[in-house]
Amino acid sequence: MPTPHEYAASQAMRFREQLKDFIRIPSISTLPEHTADVRRAAEWLADDMRRAGFQTVEILPTNGHPVVYGEWLGAGPDAPTVLVYGHYDVQPAVMSDGWESDPFEPVERDGRLYARGASDDKGQVFAQVKAVESVLAASGNCPVNLKFLIEGEEEVGSPNLAPFVSAHRDRLKADVCVVSDTGMRTPDQPVICYATRGLMYLEFEVTGPKQDLHSGTYGGMVHNPAQALAEIIAQLHHPDGSIAVPGFYDEVVPLRPDEREALGRSAMPDGFWQQSSGVPAFWGEADYALHERVGARPSLEINGMVSGFYGAGSKTVLPAKALAKISCRLVPNQDPHRIFERVRDTLMKLTPPTVRGEARLLAEAFPAVMDIRSPAMEAALTAYEKGWGKRPVFERGGGTLPILADFQRELGGLPILLMGFGLSDDGAHGPNERFSLEMFHKGIDTAIHFLHEAGK
Amino acid sequence: MPTPHEYAASQAMRFREQLKDFIRIPSISTLPEHTADVRRAAEWLADDMRRAGFQTVEILPTNGHPVVYGEWLGAGPDAPTVLVYGHYDVQPAVMSDGWESDPFEPVERDGRLYARGASDDKGQVFAQVKAVESVLAASGNCPVNLKFLIEGEEEVGSPNLAPFVSAHRDRLKADVCVVSDTGMRTPDQPVICYATRGLMYLEFEVTGPKQDLHSGTYGGMVHNPAQALAEIIAQLHHPDGSIAVPGFYDEVVPLRPDEREALGRSAMPDGFWQQSSGVPAFWGEADYALHERVGARPSLEINGMVSGFYGAGSKTVLPAKALAKISCRLVPNQDPHRIFERVRDTLMKLTPPTVRGEARLLAEAFPAVMDIRSPAMEAALTAYEKGWGKRPVFERGGGTLPILADFQRELGGLPILLMGFGLSDDGAHGPNERFSLEMFHKGIDTAIHFLHEAGK
Repeated sequence: MPTPHEYAASQAMRFREQLKDFIRIPSISTLPEHTADVRRAAEWLADDMRRAGFQTVEILPTNGHPVVYGEWLGAGPDAPTVLVYGHYDVQPAVMSDGWESDPFEPVERDGRLYARGASDDKGQVFAQVKAVESVLAASGNCPVNLKFLIEGEEEVGSPNLAPFVSAHRDRLKADVCVVSDTGMRTPDQPVICYATRGLMYLEFEVTGPKQDLHSGTYGGMVHNPAQALAEIIAQLHHPDGSIAVPGFYDEVVPLRPDEREALGRSAMPDGFWQQSSGVPAFWGEADYALHERVGARPSLEINGMVSGFYGAGSKTVLPAKALAKISCRLVPNQDPHRIFERVRDTLMKLTPPTVRGEARLLAEAFPAVMDIRSPAMEAALTAYEKGWGKRPVFERGGGTLPILADFQRELGGLPILLMGFGLSDDGAHGPNERFSLEMFHKGIDTAIHFLHEAGK
Repeated sequence: MPTPHEYAASQAMRFREQLKDFIRIPSISTLPEHTADVRRAAEWLADDMRRAGFQTVEILPTNGHPVVYGEWLGAGPDAPTVLVYGHYDVQPAVMSDGWESDPFEPVERDGRLYARGASDDKGQVFAQVKAVESVLAASGNCPVNLKFLIEGEEEVGSPNLAPFVSAHRDRLKADVCVVSDTGMRTPDQPVICYATRGLMYLEFEVTGPKQDLHSGTYGGMVHNPAQALAEIIAQLHHPDGSIAVPGFYDEVVPLRPDEREALGRSAMPDGFWQQSSGVPAFWGEADYALHERVGARPSLEINGMVSGFYGAGSKTVLPAKALAKISCRLVPNQDPHRIFERVRDTLMKLTPPTVRGEARLLAEAFPAVMDIRSPAMEAALTAYEKGWGKRPVFERGGGTLPILADFQRELGGLPILLMGFGLSDDGAHGPNERFSLEMFHKGIDTAIHFLHEAGK
């Protein structure tokens, strides 16, 4: 009888062809004309999960696209339960965006599979499903109970996921959650991201004159709203790069010295960031290394600004208003709504009586941090070590995964593992998205190892 | 034999109907599909000037639309020569902009003539032509020699006027120039604007990352170009509203106390500016009255800004660049190019090493100030007093008329009079542009008076 790994190796070609079939369904969640395709992808995945050996597979409705939910509970009530999260929907893609081949007709080139969704997230979800198939096919059994929650709205911001998790709280109960929708920077060194930043996003509008004015007739007696906005924005940071919003850092949990040291050992060199960003010089809080500024410190960004005339040539308008999109990345234990209130109050306080200001909240998400010393994390480390031949290093991510805080809140603070097999240069959301076939097969192996390690 | 005023009064209805014919020609200089209409308007005007009694009327070519040039030199070499400037081209206009009637089918409503070009500038040009017709028809003679230069490219920035004036410098030689393309704020109180501000217009671009970045991955280690631009712009003014560009005020000629007092007597009340602008409070140099800030002090405006994402909703981009349109209104004796160099140098000095900055010059125009104690000005004051029954007050305008400095430079510093008959609420460039028929007829009378006063 083959081991699960032998089974996976023998089925490698079939797994790839199946993944291509999955990818060929253009399950673009944001485009209404693809609603039937999204449904078709859910059904295709549910069918494959049934064939893989899941005991129950259901397509559960939400207020938007459905969730594919599969269970295998054969390990019994005393065995641990693993909840796996991923998504089967994809971003839009058209040839004119710069694709070299049809985004929905997967092509293998140089060991990579080129297609929309290859990496984000169909390839990763499918690696998890194929790991389960391999384990069940090889032994008829699995050391852990399994619950797969694969949603169809991740690319539109998961608007219905939190209510779904809340409504199915009891059914989703698990001992550990595996999120397979992230990645690592290089294929050689596995990385486990154990923290994500939260988000607070607002827009701030400064208004002055009742309409655009002639800069000749009024220039010098009216506070230009674009200038006023610039003056306000310029006061949001101290010269040292820290954020000049009273109380902003009050709830920030400092990095522990040991954590700091561990992160330092595995950090990418500054040259990596220099090359990938192309900036002439770095900026920010000098007391923190680059990876700490992004992973362990909150930030405040101007995501955009607009005011008056900005086309080619010159137009001597004195604009009636100016708008900025402003967002903060947050770290534990910052509360996005409290941060909104503090930033809003600061903006209003900085707004002089010569103009009017208004701040409007657009989005909020909590930061999340996972315990790196939990048994579940240890199982993941061992699984990666066996799958990759190398022990993973830890990192704190700078991005935001709102679902993590939702899962933690609704499911009793269960440990969450970000077990992603994408690469940072897979081009997710862009043209010519690709997924390394080596990552796909190593991912299956690692997921198999994890199911065994988690059951110990 | 009737006086010129009696002649004009007797012909009032015919003058109006002729003006309507002139207006019906959609001489939109910026739209290539109207090139033939622009030509047609030039020919219509030339024909009317010939009928009015001009000795020579020519349509002179430029690199763009032609100039209509007319001469009457019957007053002889010892009499003064008056050069009249105006334009026969108009701004675009379509019903969907909010017109209540066809913009090129003039309609009289409540004593106003509604149509594109009614005020800016066909109505004003035509008042000057009809004054000449009235004077010549009444007496067969005129106390001054006349040179009319009516261009067809004012609404596209007069790109070919300076070379034209330079090329025809000798022919255009005159003792005084009358520019009839401005206006007054109320019909009751004639105003003579004797100064205009110059202009320096640049765009300033801040770049940082080589492309837009993910604010999660880079937020905190990269100097956000929108933030950097705001920080730079915020340093361009001192808290007291003065401009923080070293050397900016070096060449500014201070207001003389008597001039200041005279301007103060005729200034519009603050409530006028408050109502017309709608700002919650005024801003600017506290040592100067509102009309002085606009008319006698230079200003620096942000005409527009753009960076990153500014649509509906939220996008967590860290923008690669940010652009601002920045312009200065200048007063005598500021040199626009020297001001460009100083502002550019300041911008570059304020640009930190974490980003790159580039300033690009877009437009320059000199300020102009006219002698209010010249005999020509005295003739204008008397003409207005006779035409309006009220002596005009003086004001310094905040806008820019590049042609004034061109005329002064090319034509030996001749005195220039801004003899405009528009009203500031005529809606020039906007929908439902209109020209007060009272202003039209008073304008003809005033222009007749001026020809006699200038000949004394």
